[in-house]
Amino acid sequence: MNFASDTWAPAHPKVLEALHTVNAGYFPAYGDDASMERVTEMIRDMFEAPQAAVYLVSTGTAANSLALATYAMPWSAIYCHELAHIDDDECGGPEFFTGGAKLVLLPGKHGKVLPSVLSEKLAVKPRRDVHKIQNGVLSLTNVTELGAVYSAAEISALADVAKSHDLPVHLDGARFSNAIVASGATPAEMTWKAGVDVVSFGGSKNGLMGVEAVVLFDPDKAWEFELRRKRAGHLVAKHRYLSAQMEAYLSNNLWRELAENANAQGAYLAKGLGSVDGAWFVHPQEANMMFCAWDRPGHDRARAANVPLGSYTIEGRDGRDQMAARLVTNWSTTTSEVDQFVDLIAQPGSAR
Amino acid sequence: MNFASDTWAPAHPKVLEALHTVNAGYFPAYGDDASMERVTEMIRDMFEAPQAAVYLVSTGTAANSLALATYAMPWSAIYCHELAHIDDDECGGPEFFTGGAKLVLLPGKHGKVLPSVLSEKLAVKPRRDVHKIQNGVLSLTNVTELGAVYSAAEISALADVAKSHDLPVHLDGARFSNAIVASGATPAEMTWKAGVDVVSFGGSKNGLMGVEAVVLFDPDKAWEFELRRKRAGHLVAKHRYLSAQMEAYLSNNLWRELAENANAQGAYLAKGLGSVDGAWFVHPQEANMMFCAWDRPGHDRARAANVPLGSYTIEGRDGRDQMAARLVTNWSTTTSEVDQFVDLIAQPGSAR
Amino acid sequence: MNFASDTWAPAHPKVLEALHTVNAGYFPAYGDDASMERVTEMIRDMFEAPQAAVYLVSTGTAANSLALATYAMPWSAIYCHELAHIDDDECGGPEFFTGGAKLVLLPGKHGKVLPSVLSEKLAVKPRRDVHKIQNGVLSLTNVTELGAVYSAAEISALADVAKSHDLPVHLDGARFSNAIVASGATPAEMTWKAGVDVVSFGGSKNGLMGVEAVVLFDPDKAWEFELRRKRAGHLVAKHRYLSAQMEAYLSNNLWRELAENANAQGAYLAKGLGSVDGAWFVHPQEANMMFCAWDRPGHDRARAANVPLGSYTIEGRDGRDQMAARLVTNWSTTTSEVDQFVDLIAQPGSAR
Amino acid sequence: MNFASDTWAPAHPKVLEALHTVNAGYFPAYGDDASMERVTEMIRDMFEAPQAAVYLVSTGTAANSLALATYAMPWSAIYCHELAHIDDDECGGPEFFTGGAKLVLLPGKHGKVLPSVLSEKLAVKPRRDVHKIQNGVLSLTNVTELGAVYSAAEISALADVAKSHDLPVHLDGARFSNAIVASGATPAEMTWKAGVDVVSFGGSKNGLMGVEAVVLFDPDKAWEFELRRKRAGHLVAKHRYLSAQMEAYLSNNLWRELAENANAQGAYLAKGLGSVDGAWFVHPQEANMMFCAWDRPGHDRARAANVPLGSYTIEGRDGRDQMAARLVTNWSTTTSEVDQFVDLIAQPGSAR
Repeated sequence: MNFASDTWAPAHPKVLEALHTVNAGYFPAYGDDASMERVTEMIRDMFEAPQAAVYLVSTGTAANSLALATYAMPWSAIYCHELAHIDDDECGGPEFFTGGAKLVLLPGKHGKVLPSVLSEKLAVKPRRDVHKIQNGVLSLTNVTELGAVYSAAEISALADVAKSHDLPVHLDGARFSNAIVASGATPAEMTWKAGVDVVSFGGSKNGLMGVEAVVLFDPDKAWEFELRRKRAGHLVAKHRYLSAQMEAYLSNNLWRELAENANAQGAYLAKGLGSVDGAWFVHPQEANMMFCAWDRPGHDRARAANVPLGSYTIEGRDGRDQMAARLVTNWSTTTSEVDQFVDLIAQPGSAR
Repeated sequence: MNFASDTWAPAHPKVLEALHTVNAGYFPAYGDDASMERVTEMIRDMFEAPQAAVYLVSTGTAANSLALATYAMPWSAIYCHELAHIDDDECGGPEFFTGGAKLVLLPGKHGKVLPSVLSEKLAVKPRRDVHKIQNGVLSLTNVTELGAVYSAAEISALADVAKSHDLPVHLDGARFSNAIVASGATPAEMTWKAGVDVVSFGGSKNGLMGVEAVVLFDPDKAWEFELRRKRAGHLVAKHRYLSAQMEAYLSNNLWRELAENANAQGAYLAKGLGSVDGAWFVHPQEANMMFCAWDRPGHDRARAANVPLGSYTIEGRDGRDQMAARLVTNWSTTTSEVDQFVDLIAQPGSAR
Repeated sequence: MNFASDTWAPAHPKVLEALHTVNAGYFPAYGDDASMERVTEMIRDMFEAPQAAVYLVSTGTAANSLALATYAMPWSAIYCHELAHIDDDECGGPEFFTGGAKLVLLPGKHGKVLPSVLSEKLAVKPRRDVHKIQNGVLSLTNVTELGAVYSAAEISALADVAKSHDLPVHLDGARFSNAIVASGATPAEMTWKAGVDVVSFGGSKNGLMGVEAVVLFDPDKAWEFELRRKRAGHLVAKHRYLSAQMEAYLSNNLWRELAENANAQGAYLAKGLGSVDGAWFVHPQEANMMFCAWDRPGHDRARAANVPLGSYTIEGRDGRDQMAARLVTNWSTTTSEVDQFVDLIAQPGSAR
Repeated sequence: MNFASDTWAPAHPKVLEALHTVNAGYFPAYGDDASMERVTEMIRDMFEAPQAAVYLVSTGTAANSLALATYAMPWSAIYCHELAHIDDDECGGPEFFTGGAKLVLLPGKHGKVLPSVLSEKLAVKPRRDVHKIQNGVLSLTNVTELGAVYSAAEISALADVAKSHDLPVHLDGARFSNAIVASGATPAEMTWKAGVDVVSFGGSKNGLMGVEAVVLFDPDKAWEFELRRKRAGHLVAKHRYLSAQMEAYLSNNLWRELAENANAQGAYLAKGLGSVDGAWFVHPQEANMMFCAWDRPGHDRARAANVPLGSYTIEGRDGRDQMAARLVTNWSTTTSEVDQFVDLIAQPGSAR
């Protein structure tokens, strides 16, 4: 029983199996393996993007930072939500990879940027003033840091604003699969059809050991990306083990199946929490991550039972401090885990 | 049958098994897993360095670049052999990670730097001239790029020169295990006892899927290294899968057992090549990588049989162009593979 | 008649004269000139800091960026006001020089940071979380971007908060002389006695052709600063011409005399504007830069007369758009210029 | 009497006069002054390049580094002579400005690169190997670091090799005027007609206080250069003082007149040295800088007389250590200074 993070979850058995498949004998190194060829084709199919360039790296920070560096100049602005992972959780990775681009932070409820906020920010930006950083990239995150899900239409509306200022658009899709399942959009609708130029398509949080794909819809950016990846130490020698994981993930839409369980368990957990006396949602549950406040005794019981949670203090609805938690379900979460947890934090003897 | 590179070889079965062991259930992310604790202790034991800081990354370029950046300032010189991997095969990784340090290249036979060459280079370097790059780091590679092995005494002699100019010493040990087996030195003798400050202890070329350890003998450098690793996207979320590989590698000295086979097959291959009419060694065979020239028909037969080799053209001993090849044996190489290969390139009907 | 910027103003005649003095014959290059020796001693006297390291550069961006890079690591936060020149007017200079530090923006009236705002920001910052950027530097600006002046006590209160989180403090003193004159503090009281570690002491906006001094109160930082300066192309070969300007500026406290006129004219201009019907101050006038709104016909007359101004649109006190302007007086501004300008924008036939 | 460096020499009186001319009243800042407009037109005329973009900076390191960064990617190679100022005297400036490009050093007599050496180096460079740094820029220096002068034809032959590998060409012209005078080529012949893309056209070593022009023959590079200049703190606020110096330099070909004297005095000094018993030239005198060895007593007399020289030890023609010196003449050098110096070092009572 664990709701701390989807990065604490194991890898799916098919992923480990796939490693055995590619472990027999010699394979070309550095991405020239046959499995990577198949991965490229499968991702192009998945995204309906026959020209897309596809690369694998081991971490989300690498995927995001390399994608951003390929699109942003050192003197440019990367517009993102003020809680974006690229600003708040990567120890300055984007600044390092871009050579000093500036992250310009935008407010917005539930981790979402609103087109009007972006539009207003870009409106005050002079175009040819050498003293100012220049327009660079818009970076969006779906599922957001606060568990909300952008619809494809919302992404498209934001990309429209961006494009009207010549900004390319990056999508941090660490939980892309969960966003696809939650939104009902196709991968193409959520990305290039909406105006996204490059997407970090995450695997690590959804059942892989540690693989993220970067999909660049403009193949002219491919060579620069490859050089940046190598130079940053992110071109893995025995690349076949990354390819194999991703191939398993793509086969029979395993990525979707796993995200469906994570999201379904998220909804089930939300339903359970909703039934707990005094519990309330700080942000709406829309995929596999939620933020919920409940009474202190319930928190104490969770801690006593050593259930990993992302606990924190917020201002309660009565203006006093209250304890809340970020809760994340994942591909391996079971209904019995959820039941057990809801029972644990619910008031004993309550109506539940 | 493949002698192209040890990065084309599979992972050892015990390494894949270890992944299964850590795949059950939830583990803390980002290196806080129990397996990493054991790895740290085992590496400290292996190196007789109870204070050492130990970190895992996915690639050799990352291990080297992060280690160098922790010791070199942006305005400093990194002294290395003119064929060093850090200069010639990492697409400028060290320059990227250090923020622009300069690699100063030293000549030397068989990929080895001589103390006299280093000494002479450092002697002409002014100490407090603001126009010049400043002294930074000495970086050595063992096994060298040309297959030679430094003894611990040779490393020590070079480190003495470096230390007399206040240079810390980095050891690129992508093939550290092979160097240990070939030299007979202990890991401690080859590193901190000889004056090495930080070592990249490779695993990927010797039976792991993709893990390199960085061992910093000065724990005061640990926190900076951690920040640099995170910022560069090299802190893996589901770190347990790196830990597990390394734990398997360290258990029962698997690293040594695998390097012993690679080196033994190297010696056996060298013996076989030595018996081929007209073959000669461009560089001495000392571990698991060798450079050997032989007659063109033999090369043609190898190519016709699709045996992956690192072929290249050199000036033959008669002054005319001749074909040579880099040949690498690995943990999985068998005597029958070697026999088959030597038979293939030897003149048919020759005395062999 | 010109109130656009103090950078549009000429150099003081004594400054040009000083160039002639050092123009006779040969002088050692790169800062080894005798004039620089005198400058160092005079600045140490002026700041009552006999150990301080003193360097000259040609621009404020260089002074600020080099100072910040000497104190901030690439992975650290530089806390500053959200309108700070280092964030808004240097095209990412601090990010470039630091190798990617992140500017963390703090709100505050009139360009001032409040200790409580800084304190709150620092309070939520975890200390040893490798995912987050680390604490770096506090950078303050005096005179602020909006014309306000910090007292020495205010600087001290901010530095106290910074120091309690181990943050060194940088002072952007592009208009340091004006701040000294306005506040009545001594240079020492405004800097190291208040907790400032490094100050950019501006000359270009106050009568020099283009020289800024960087004063580092900790001489242990000197050598790194020198290397960074050289590497950035900011060590001028014929340095004597920078030294000579600064020597003239320091002699007989010319810097103070010039700032006194600039500030006095600022006060006189403010008085004049205050008498204009409908005019009101967006930010208080405290030194030589002010922000004032007045009626459109007055703005139209200023434009028709080609008086350079920093005009912009704000929300008026009645909620409707209104025109305002940034007005800067300088060492060479005369009362007749001010009179002429106030007459120009005042309503014809008004009571003035 | 001083032969240490042309950076020790004063500025020409007309240069100081020009400062007075632009010191009257208000001028737009940051390069928008009318004097800069004239400078741009005059440099376009001088180079017969009506589309060229022209910028001024304060130092040669800035001029070179900004020019190189505009043409080289972070992962690319900058080919230059092994004694090039950009490698040996700028404390890693090009690495800093480019974000980590690698300087690849080429040997060659008298500071000159030979087309055959460049060609051979480029021939072994694989084109699309992601592990290797990519081709970036060829940077040449004229006058070379050892006092030799490339003819326009020699530059052209080198640029041809570069262009056949898609390398743009940078010319470090810190002593461009001296090279023009010595070679008899026109500025156009020495630059774009020969295949040079960007030139650092020096002023500081030839009578200015501290101004270098960067001339980009491709105006499409202009905006990037401007952003890089600002970001690096090299856009001077009171730019008129740079413009005025350069305008004086260009007016009536003052640059040429000054270089003519420097070179003529160089030739006269060489003639004088040639008459000294036992003196010999380490490198040929071709412009205003020469390297000459003579007997120790002569060196002792120079030192006793406090004549600044760049003295160093070389292997004499008899295989023993001998003292030599770098000697630089400049725009202000007089024949009497030269006579006095030659008399000083010549053997007393010698035939001279």
